[in-house]
Amino acid sequence: MLSASWVKTMSNYVYGVDVGGTSIKIGRFEAGQEVKLIKKWEIPTRLEDGGQHILEDIAIEIGKDDDNTGERIKGIGLAVPGPVLADGTVNRCINLGWNRFNVEQTLADLVHSKTGMKLKVRAANDANAAALGEYFAGAGRSYSYLLMATLGTGVGGGFVADGQILTGATGAACEIGHLVVNPEEPETCNCGKHGCLEQYVSATGIVRLAKMALSGRTQTALSGDDLTAEKIFEAAKAGDELALGVVDEVAQILGMGLANAANVLNPDVIVLGGGVSKAGEFLRVRVEKSFRLHAFHACQGADINLAELSNDAGIFGAALLIR
Amino acid sequence: MLSASWVKTMSNYVYGVDVGGTSIKIGRFEAGQEVKLIKKWEIPTRLEDGGQHILEDIAIEIGKDDDNTGERIKGIGLAVPGPVLADGTVNRCINLGWNRFNVEQTLADLVHSKTGMKLKVRAANDANAAALGEYFAGAGRSYSYLLMATLGTGVGGGFVADGQILTGATGAACEIGHLVVNPEEPETCNCGKHGCLEQYVSATGIVRLAKMALSGRTQTALSGDDLTAEKIFEAAKAGDELALGVVDEVAQILGMGLANAANVLNPDVIVLGGGVSKAGEFLRVRVEKSFRLHAFHACQGADINLAELSNDAGIFGAALLIR
Repeated sequence: MLSASWVKTMSNYVYGVDVGGTSIKIGRFEAGQEVKLIKKWEIPTRLEDGGQHILEDIAIEIGKDDDNTGERIKGIGLAVPGPVLADGTVNRCINLGWNRFNVEQTLADLVHSKTGMKLKVRAANDANAAALGEYFAGAGRSYSYLLMATLGTGVGGGFVADGQILTGATGAACEIGHLVVNPEEPETCNCGKHGCLEQYVSATGIVRLAKMALSGRTQTALSGDDLTAEKIFEAAKAGDELALGVVDEVAQILGMGLANAANVLNPDVIVLGGGVSKAGEFLRVRVEKSFRLHAFHACQGADINLAELSNDAGIFGAALLIR
Repeated sequence: MLSASWVKTMSNYVYGVDVGGTSIKIGRFEAGQEVKLIKKWEIPTRLEDGGQHILEDIAIEIGKDDDNTGERIKGIGLAVPGPVLADGTVNRCINLGWNRFNVEQTLADLVHSKTGMKLKVRAANDANAAALGEYFAGAGRSYSYLLMATLGTGVGGGFVADGQILTGATGAACEIGHLVVNPEEPETCNCGKHGCLEQYVSATGIVRLAKMALSGRTQTALSGDDLTAEKIFEAAKAGDELALGVVDEVAQILGMGLANAANVLNPDVIVLGGGVSKAGEFLRVRVEKSFRLHAFHACQGADINLAELSNDAGIFGAALLIR
């Protein structure tokens, strides 16, 4: 993904870093009116010792990549899998073993001690960063108010209004996975509540619905062993009735949940991202139908788009924190 | 409500104007670090001729009130009962007979032609303005992210983050009255959907729930004639079991709806305003209990406060648009 414009010697650069539970993605971007990805690479996430080597490893990588002057580097944007307050404080990242500390200051200090460079560091929650990435460089480019739903193992979300991430009081804004869509649900969500959106439309939730539908049924291509959301969508696309029923139920519930979020946020675009969104148009059109049915008329006009940046949304969004 | 400080001759002033369906409230505020209400008065809302005299009347009132130089007037803030886009366009105010036009530009032009003054005009939806008023001058003074629920004949809402109103793509952000809390509801909401929060917790919704509970019951102080939300709260406070049951149901549903809104917005304070909120602590503690039960743990800590500015929230918020 090399761009010809990297040879412009006067360009400024930013790094976008996306910290996940298994790997850290690093992107170097040319920063002008827009960001342009110049190169990207990954290093493993070292979880030992309470995740204390993670930021050190990032500082070292950036030191190695730099042209040694640092003058053209505008800063480092960081996406982390947990809540981040407006002042750069992370409020626990369970996957990384992190407790509460100021991740911006800590990384800036480490970069300074490892490389001698004094760089600006800005951090955000990874779902919020992905939303920012799609807003400026992906499926939300031509919109002003973007709601992103990240449909993975769990369900996350982010909201960007006029180019600014909505962080919230505890860094937990747009946790749409825990909108209650069915107060009567007997099973308990990971969060301890009942009937959260995540229990139905995450990859895990979709498998759960399929398993419930499967019990006692034989005329289906699906089997209870090694069932995945991907297999369910494949079977539905091939015309399997039971799988189609599950997909319709998922889309109906997701559309209703997004409608409730949209009644509060009034976005002009809703972007579907994360692994589940790879089901593509097949899922999107069904979600859109349910959304239009359930949204308040003044909020009904939002476009529903599939994400465009895929796994790069996080590094794009992180880079875009430096503006 | 005269303040001694009005005599400071160097002070700047702003007008806060709240346009309702029957009257227009006008406040003159001293504008410094905070706004201070100097005087307030009302004029009737002239609805004839498609509401076209309303802005003219406001311009004339301000011209009459002014000291004829206009130099110390920083501007006019306007709260209107309908959606307002970020550029000052109102997108229909059904109660006033207004269609789509730029209300800021129109009022500024009228003020100029009637008084010779060139004043800045900023407009907002009235529920959003009330939220801004409570944020800076009322029950949200010591918070950063405020969600306000206005419980009147209908249910409106507003969200203020870091001092900025969330407007949304069509000026309809925070329409929490139309969050779907019960998709199984057989009765239709004014908006055409089923199971909107407004159907249960507005003054009208509370009477509806009471009437359903009343059918066939005799051991209650309530009667079906001239039933009002106020009477229901009075009976509940006096220990009437049926009324208490209705209030508990209202609080339970409102707490759940606010929890869903809070999971998206992550406020640090939720302010209950509007006529229904005059039920006071009796309602607040019950709503808080249900909210804590239904909110996602990271969003659970928001304080729930009763509004402080009552009917003045609109003029305060309007004045605060001029900053």
